[in-house]
Amino acid sequence: MQRLLYSLSGASGQHYSPHVWKIMMSLKHKGLDFELKPVSFGDISKIEDGSFTSVPVLNDQGTLLGDSFEIAEYLEETYQDAPSLFDGPGGLQLSHFVESYCKTVLHPTLAVIAVMDMYNIMSDADRAYFRPAREKRFGKSLEDVYAGRDAELSTLPEKLNPVRDLLTNQDWFGGEKAMHADYVLFGTLQWCKVCCPDPILAPSDPVNLWFERMLDLHDYMGRKAVSEAVAA
Amino acid sequence: MQRLLYSLSGASGQHYSPHVWKIMMSLKHKGLDFELKPVSFGDISKIEDGSFTSVPVLNDQGTLLGDSFEIAEYLEETYQDAPSLFDGPGGLQLSHFVESYCKTVLHPTLAVIAVMDMYNIMSDADRAYFRPAREKRFGKSLEDVYAGRDAELSTLPEKLNPVRDLLTNQDWFGGEKAMHADYVLFGTLQWCKVCCPDPILAPSDPVNLWFERMLDLHDYMGRKAVSEAVAA
Repeated sequence: MQRLLYSLSGASGQHYSPHVWKIMMSLKHKGLDFELKPVSFGDISKIEDGSFTSVPVLNDQGTLLGDSFEIAEYLEETYQDAPSLFDGPGGLQLSHFVESYCKTVLHPTLAVIAVMDMYNIMSDADRAYFRPAREKRFGKSLEDVYAGRDAELSTLPEKLNPVRDLLTNQDWFGGEKAMHADYVLFGTLQWCKVCCPDPILAPSDPVNLWFERMLDLHDYMGRKAVSEAVAA
Repeated sequence: MQRLLYSLSGASGQHYSPHVWKIMMSLKHKGLDFELKPVSFGDISKIEDGSFTSVPVLNDQGTLLGDSFEIAEYLEETYQDAPSLFDGPGGLQLSHFVESYCKTVLHPTLAVIAVMDMYNIMSDADRAYFRPAREKRFGKSLEDVYAGRDAELSTLPEKLNPVRDLLTNQDWFGGEKAMHADYVLFGTLQWCKVCCPDPILAPSDPVNLWFERMLDLHDYMGRKAVSEAVAA
């Protein structure tokens, strides 16, 4: 049996879903190999048993799972002898807070920053789905959302203040090593790293220095994905 | 030997320091009794061996400690048979992120909201210290800071978005029970609850419902302190 991870991807195979990146990193953290299965928006409802409405979807040797946090909990419980993603029950509970921070503080901003670059790397079929769906959500055209990109980008450094403060005293959310909470924020930012030609963080920002460390983890998986995306 | 907790307090004994509240709750969480020793700003440098510049300071039967996070770590390590404050090493590490969130996102806002109410409950000696120190920090008079109170208060609900999102799915930061991370946010908000006559959260806000649950913990310690402060 195989281990398959379904991932939204661009026309040239760029994996840009933040939630899929959380699980790509968590699988490698557990030392688990997997095959990435690229899907388009239109394919999501046809994944495996047809019960899923978003990615990631993991088929772990026959066990089907959706939702990145549920997958991380499953991996922690199923592969207990591998390095821990949560380092105990308190770490699992507080990883939910890191999720809530990324979801409510960063996602709305990054959604504006990345919208046009995401659109540009999509297949024609995905563009035909994405444009009306996002224009309905934003209540304006993608071009009008994009017009607010610079203003939105200028708010990002302040929104990262809690992370910057944390990283003044420790190298990872997990202290001396990365844990799932690191992957939650990493996936969130890797979304833009894969889509956007221009950097969204200042080179010397401690958050960027942490992000660069994250790109080096697990045999440079995040870094290779970006260079492949750029080459594509 | 006694267990003494030194706490900044108002002219009528109101304990308003957010960092002291974190430790009051954490001591009770561990089932430990303590004697609160009120101090003024001018007294801080005279606490115990004279080496401290802020509160809380804990004298735990002869062991002297400052800094609320260091005290919480000490309590966890020293009283291992009592209920855990961190629920494992991951919980300890991610509690730092909750601290960073409170410090960078909430404190600057609450410092404006509470500044005049804090001043009003202080002794004359503390007022004489506090006014020039805070006016230097803010770069304007307390009255001018207070003039921006309503504008600052209006930003608070959005700043609490990550907490509100978390509490949609769980009752406490710790999941099914409170942990030190709950006390970190509680102390931060209790600061205003003790000082400010007017509520800073809408009654139906999930953050306020959680705060009300926090006030009930440990034999209503937080609630009693507020009613005593109001009666004073």
